[in-house]
This record gives sequence, structure tokens and C-alpha cells, in this order.
Amino acid sequence: MRAVVYGAGAMGSIITRLLVEKGVSVVGAVARSPGKVGRDLGEVAGLSFKLGVTVDDDPDAVMSRAAADIAVVAVSSYLRTMYDHLRTCLEHEANVVTIEEESFFPWATAPSLAKRLDLVAKRHGVTIMGSGAQDLYWMTLPSALMGAAHRVDSVHGRTTWNVDDYGPEVAQHVHAGSTLEQFEAHVAREGWPSFVVRNTVDALVADAGLTTAKMESSVAPVLAATDTPSRSLGRVITAGELLGVTDTATTDTLEGPSFTFEQTGCVYARGRSDLNEWVVRGEPAELRLRNDDVPTRLATCTQVVNRIPDVINAPPGFTTVADLPRLRYRHFPLDSYLVGA
Amino acid sequence: MRAVVYGAGAMGSIITRLLVEKGVSVVGAVARSPGKVGRDLGEVAGLSFKLGVTVDDDPDAVMSRAAADIAVVAVSSYLRTMYDHLRTCLEHEANVVTIEEESFFPWATAPSLAKRLDLVAKRHGVTIMGSGAQDLYWMTLPSALMGAAHRVDSVHGRTTWNVDDYGPEVAQHVHAGSTLEQFEAHVAREGWPSFVVRNTVDALVADAGLTTAKMESSVAPVLAATDTPSRSLGRVITAGELLGVTDTATTDTLEGPSFTFEQTGCVYARGRSDLNEWVVRGEPAELRLRNDDVPTRLATCTQVVNRIPDVINAPPGFTTVADLPRLRYRHFPLDSYLVGA
Repeated sequence: MRAVVYGAGAMGSIITRLLVEKGVSVVGAVARSPGKVGRDLGEVAGLSFKLGVTVDDDPDAVMSRAAADIAVVAVSSYLRTMYDHLRTCLEHEANVVTIEEESFFPWATAPSLAKRLDLVAKRHGVTIMGSGAQDLYWMTLPSALMGAAHRVDSVHGRTTWNVDDYGPEVAQHVHAGSTLEQFEAHVAREGWPSFVVRNTVDALVADAGLTTAKMESSVAPVLAATDTPSRSLGRVITAGELLGVTDTATTDTLEGPSFTFEQTGCVYARGRSDLNEWVVRGEPAELRLRNDDVPTRLATCTQVVNRIPDVINAPPGFTTVADLPRLRYRHFPLDSYLVGA
Repeated sequence: MRAVVYGAGAMGSIITRLLVEKGVSVVGAVARSPGKVGRDLGEVAGLSFKLGVTVDDDPDAVMSRAAADIAVVAVSSYLRTMYDHLRTCLEHEANVVTIEEESFFPWATAPSLAKRLDLVAKRHGVTIMGSGAQDLYWMTLPSALMGAAHRVDSVHGRTTWNVDDYGPEVAQHVHAGSTLEQFEAHVAREGWPSFVVRNTVDALVADAGLTTAKMESSVAPVLAATDTPSRSLGRVITAGELLGVTDTATTDTLEGPSFTFEQTGCVYARGRSDLNEWVVRGEPAELRLRNDDVPTRLATCTQVVNRIPDVINAPPGFTTVADLPRLRYRHFPLDSYLVGA
């Protein structure tokens, strides 16, 4: 199996190691940063050996040379900023798995871009999908939990992630370190995209075969109760400033069940760890599931890699985990899980 | 969709109601108890209406008349005691889903009986499988959790269930109310079957595509610390007597990962509830999952009913959840989930 690592940041670096350890030939690497271009990917990814793959900032050239089975794309968020990158991979007949969050279920928030990528993928006989932490924690687990329900009235998810695990850009994205006034002025001026929570709820509703009647989303600031040091900002967030935000999306379905997902991304006080929790209410009265100490960052990369055989095996087009076999552990080299292998 | 409720005890009664509420025509009912035979199933199952189905103790007659798509079999444990019942259903060309625990993954503990039922099922073009609480809690969830692992070193599950939820026969099965001496003498004399924990571990190992190298199982008494009233025994278990037992199975695989499952079935002290917990160790160092307040008894029935479309849709033979689509919620009448529906 031949792979291109498309995006050689923190996540791309972890993914590179996982791919190598799962027997995949990494045959190309795309990155923009001048500090990375021209260097060996093994070195950029912090491996103890060279991979013989030079990081290149020309996606077209990399994909042309690579003849890759799969491109693992970890560049940035939102389908509109990622569209050209994803199309380039597909046009070179590489299947794509990406941690771009909207791709997890793009049909409500970016339907026309998703449809265009679907057509490109089908024309070139390859498959594209989004995976990441949401695959297990926000989709497979709550969907399975619902499988023990006779009647679902509501599904409620709550998850937290530590902004300090992802660097300054992400910290700014959730307004860590802003004052409440700055944050409120920003939201009043520019609004706030529902984004990841929305895509998660859309995926769950679709997976259950239900129909969205009404979707509402909101954002709430998470304020520091005491002075809290932030690694990613390189300073202390003073009491009263934002540690981050809680995004919430709620969908009522035509059929009855409602779905709510709350995601808190903030700088953590010492000792806190990532939590993921779901409650399904109906009959039985409550079905509960909880993941403590979620290693969100690493689990994002492991799931993307474990999904590669599913992506390659799937029919061409833009697919989602709702239509794939359930997520599984891959003990053996990834190519042994390909259909016909 | 036409169903036979095969076994009209506590579980069969719940299952009857769930089937009716999911749009299934219940067209036959089998039970042995003289207090049930000849009565309407709706009455026996505690529904507020009659079903027009008379409980009958002649399985052959019921299955002949019923022309059922599915038989939901909830009679007793162990494949050797259930073999004739299951074969009767299959020979009448009914698909079978059963809560008989060994059927969940019978290939190591009862392989020849399973192979014979597999052949009968194939000859009659129908499918048989086991489901129940183990489907979600001991298989789908830990298997999915493993899907976030890059490397699995060990999988460890722990579950508890309340003996008092299942009546006096089950309480005696786990020796609730015995003295330690009685229990130890029994185990010394007759041994102790690894049974459910073993079948669960076998299923997980097979689902991961791994190979058992060594399996060990053990049983340990759970002793009452203080006097504990037992509903199912109708008496107080005095301090020092058995509340129940903890069964443990551990499998080492040829490929490396080890699997351990501990199941505690005992009379609960007041306020305790069913717990299900899994830890996957490797890389990431730990992946944790926990279900609090598990409604084990009801969730056994809901899962069996939600699995019916999968059983009917599956290729003929003796199948297991490892080979089926993931467990899902069924919001609509069950027949709408049939392939071609």
C-alpha cells in the first residue's frame, strides 16, 4: 500500500509513524512550511530514521510521482479551504481520508462542495471520507448505544478537549485568552459557525435513518475561574478571560428523537483530562456511556489510519462512516485488510 | 414480519411487547409451564390486550402453523440443552435469534453442536445467531474501542449484573446463599464451566482476527460482608455466605494481545447498579470506556429485537455479531430494515 502524507504538521507527523509501523509505504509528503520543504519526512516527523521521501510544497507534483493508493490529509478545517487539496488527491486517483472536520458529514453544512468532490471521486474511481476522534467517540459509540434502545426520545453527548494540545492557531480559534467583551463583540460581528458539533449531530441523525426538522446551535464562553497557564499561548490566562468555548448543536427530528451535542474546547486547569459522555433516553429510561482520559489527539490519528482499508474498500465517491463497516483494530499490516488481499 | 416467541418467561414476555410495538406480527408462542399453556400470550406477557396467540407446549405444532420469519428463543442456557429447540425452529425455516449465551460465539465451547446447527440452517436457507446484553456491552463497545488503538497489548473487561433481577433459578446457578464450604465442595466435585466469559473472549479474539494460544478461566466467590436481603431467594443472605460469583476468562493470542473478561453475578447491596467497563492498553497507553447503571435485563431484550433484521438479512448458517453490520437503533417497524424492503 502506497500513501502520501498530505500535511506534515503535528498530526501528519504522528500519522507518518503509524503508517510506517502498519507496513504502509509512504511515497510522498506535502507541506507548505519553508522549515519543512526539502527535508526528509522521517526527520520532519521526528522519526529516528529517514524515509527517503522529501517534503514538497507542490501537491500536483507529489501526487503525480506518488501513484498513491491513499492520501492522508491533515491540513486545516472547513471543506471550502480544503476543497482544492482534496480534489488534487482525487484527480490523481488516490483515495482520501482526512481529519478535516466538515468532511465527517458534509451533506448539510457544505453540500455543494461535497457533491462536487463526490463526482470527482466517482469519475476517478476512488473514495473520500472524513475520520478522526469523531469516528469512535461521537459516532460509533453513541450509535451503538442507541442500538440497545427500544425507543429513543433523546440523545445527549458531551465532550471536552484540551486546546493546549493543538498549538496557538487552535487556541485563537476558540478565543482562548480573549476577554468576554472581545469574544461577545466578535460573535455579534461575525456570528459563530456551528461546524463540528453540527456535523456530528447530522451524522448521527443520518445514521439512525431520521430526518432533521430543526437545528439550533449556540456558543458559550468558558471563563477562567482562576489564573490558568496556557502552553499554546505561552502566557497565563487571567481569571475572567476565556479558556475557550462550548459549542452546542441540537436537532429535532421529524420522527421524534432529539439529538444534542456539546463540545467544550478550552485550556485545561491542571489535572483535567478529555472526557466523552453520552446518554440515550427513552426505553430503557437511560443508557449511559462514558470515556475518561480520552487521548483525543493520538486517537484522531490512530482512527484515521485504521480506517484506511475501509476507505480503499468502499465504493467510489464521498462516503461517511455511517455507510462503512464498523471501526476496527488493525493488528496486521494495513494491506492485509483490503478486499481480495 | 411474522415471529414466534419461543419461551414465555420473564424475557420472552418483555420481548413479546417489544415485538408488537415494532410492528411485528406475533403468530406463535411456545412455553412448557402448565400455568401458561392454553392462555393468550398477551395475557401471559402482561400486556393489556390479547394477541390472539395461544401459548402451546408443542414446538413442532407451533412452528408448523406459524410460518414464521423469525423465532425469538429465550428458554435456557447452554447449547446442548437448547439444541433440539433451535433445530426445530430452523427445520421449520424460521430464522432464529436467541439469548442462549453460548450461541453468542459457540465455536470454541460447543463447536460440533454449532456446526450441526449451521448445516441445518444452511439446508433450510435461514440464519441463527445469539444476541443479548453481550452484543453491545461486551462485543460492539470493546471492539469499537480497540478501533482507536494503534497497538493493543491487552483488553480488560469487567461487568456486573444483579442476580436478584432474574429469579431463584439463576440465583442458585451462581450459588447465591451457599456457604463458602458448600461452594468450594461443589467446584471441587464438579468443576466450573467458563461459559459466558469464555464465549465473550472468544468472540472478541475472533472479531479482531486473532488466534487463541492459551485460555484460562477461574471462578471466585463473592461473599456478603453484611447481611443482605435477596429478592430472588426470598431470604437474607447472612454475612459470610455467597452473594454470587466472579467468573474470569483470560486468553493469550498467538499474535500478542491478551484478553481478560471478568463477570460478577451476585445479589446486590442496596443502591448498587450494573456496571460495564473496558480498558484497552497499548498505544494509546489506555483507552477507557464505562457504562454506569446498565439496564442489563431490558437491554438484553431490546438488542435481540433490534438484531432481527440483521439475522433475517444475513446469509444462511450459524452467524455471530462479529460478521454482522453494527448494532443499530430501529426507529421504524422492523420489516422496513429488511434488504429489499
